[in-house]
Amino acid sequence: MSLVVIGSVAFDALETPFGKTDKIIGGAATYISLSASYSLKPVKLVAVVGDDFPQSDILLLQEHGVDTEGLQIKEGEKSFFWSGKYSTDLNSRETLTTELNVLADFDPIIPDSYQDCRYLMLGNLAPAVQRLVIQRLVNRPKLIVMDTMNFWMDVALDDLMATIEMVDVLSINDEEARQLSGEYSLVKAAKKIMGFGPKFLIIKKGEHGALLFHKNKIFYAPALPLEEVFDPTGAGDTFAGGFIGYLAATDDISFDNMKRAVIHGSAMASFCVEKFGTERLLNLTKEQLEAREKQFADLVEVVPATSAQPA
Amino acid sequence: MSLVVIGSVAFDALETPFGKTDKIIGGAATYISLSASYSLKPVKLVAVVGDDFPQSDILLLQEHGVDTEGLQIKEGEKSFFWSGKYSTDLNSRETLTTELNVLADFDPIIPDSYQDCRYLMLGNLAPAVQRLVIQRLVNRPKLIVMDTMNFWMDVALDDLMATIEMVDVLSINDEEARQLSGEYSLVKAAKKIMGFGPKFLIIKKGEHGALLFHKNKIFYAPALPLEEVFDPTGAGDTFAGGFIGYLAATDDISFDNMKRAVIHGSAMASFCVEKFGTERLLNLTKEQLEAREKQFADLVEVVPATSAQPA
Repeated sequence: MSLVVIGSVAFDALETPFGKTDKIIGGAATYISLSASYSLKPVKLVAVVGDDFPQSDILLLQEHGVDTEGLQIKEGEKSFFWSGKYSTDLNSRETLTTELNVLADFDPIIPDSYQDCRYLMLGNLAPAVQRLVIQRLVNRPKLIVMDTMNFWMDVALDDLMATIEMVDVLSINDEEARQLSGEYSLVKAAKKIMGFGPKFLIIKKGEHGALLFHKNKIFYAPALPLEEVFDPTGAGDTFAGGFIGYLAATDDISFDNMKRAVIHGSAMASFCVEKFGTERLLNLTKEQLEAREKQFADLVEVVPATSAQPA
Repeated sequence: MSLVVIGSVAFDALETPFGKTDKIIGGAATYISLSASYSLKPVKLVAVVGDDFPQSDILLLQEHGVDTEGLQIKEGEKSFFWSGKYSTDLNSRETLTTELNVLADFDPIIPDSYQDCRYLMLGNLAPAVQRLVIQRLVNRPKLIVMDTMNFWMDVALDDLMATIEMVDVLSINDEEARQLSGEYSLVKAAKKIMGFGPKFLIIKKGEHGALLFHKNKIFYAPALPLEEVFDPTGAGDTFAGGFIGYLAATDDISFDNMKRAVIHGSAMASFCVEKFGTERLLNLTKEQLEAREKQFADLVEVVPATSAQPA
């Protein structure tokens, strides 16, 4: 089923306790697209870069099955640039630079060939821009998944709420869920947020896994305890890309299949953090993926007792 | 199988955003014993109180199948008293008062009738006192589980290490695991700590669940997302009591059965936090327990895809 992804395609410069990078390819839509490409191709990308963006990086996306017809290249302008430095434990990060550049007035163009879109992934962007994409699709997609962040809650809450109302699945982290709902309990927060429109809510808890909510149902996908996290950049986007890629490939949006999609997304994210930037997402094998998904299954597996056990 | 529990039996005065209590029954061994009593009776208690401890509270323990022959009552002395105040989100607490009283020179006496001990639970106490109990048992128990806290890492590390070396299962929280090992990654922390002696390690992560480590195996037991947490006091001890109670009742210390014990302990802890102090642990029914354990199983259940799915 046809999948459209919108979000930033950008330069990142990263500094972790393990080293630092110069400007490398980054951005929400980059991670989402690469991650989703392991489930289905093409991934139809809507994004904007400046003419400083290397042709080699565009080719890299294309080689991974990303359709770049919807990628605008703005002559004489610069690509979005973010640089950040992680704390020693990688659990927090400081933004060193944010240069919006081409993102400042991004007007998303949907190519005609994208109008068959059945699955739409709105990567983190200004919520007004995310909404424009929905409005510019002639037919409403079967499933719209939206990722966002606290920044938009602070500076564009009305816009954010208007977009949230239009989507099927919202993906945010635990702190954002608390901020958006004003509730500390994630169960209460989820009920409130689903009242804003989305039928499904994913709450990402980083090293503690992710929760999927739907009506009164809750699914808990643990994160794989990792010996070493190298660079957390893009983990949430990689999760989202794996999630919607899996759903689009299987074309099944039941709660049961969403659970499998959450596990698949979690597995993809667990790879992402093993190397800098997108590096680990560039050449995963089917065997590596299946082995990792089995690790997730094993992690929570409890064999029922054979004889009568006490309660 | 015979179970002996050592730890504090005490007075607590609690203040949460939902209210406050006067002095009520508390202490690690109280929660452990009450929780374990749902799996097997009697629970043989080793502890000390002053003559200010109400006979009615001792009767309450006895009514729940706790053998109090090993409970010393010190004439003219006062019971251990702790009071604390929780933050609005219940995620941190401030100690208002700690009066050691009878705990200051606790010399644990093991009644002859406890010498059949096969399962020994060392609740949080000075590690030298925990070790004395092991030494005073004529036969080494089949399984020794130890709970401790960061306080002993700060003030009695040598004693703590000497006791840890003698136990089979150590139960601590994530921050404590990091402090004890000097490793941020819980996987690395677990390997290091199991190198100190224990064959099994439980890392409690509060609202994020618990991890069980053994050799290269990891089991992740999520915590049930709760709508309302009323009072977290005793949750870790209730978990430990449920864990060892289940193991003692089934007399099976395989990794597979330990997983079930972790789920059972998690279910017990999820009840504990629903009311102040020990209140919720006093009259649970078998049906309530089974329903709660089913909720834990449902929480992580993924039905495999019936047709071929993408990796």
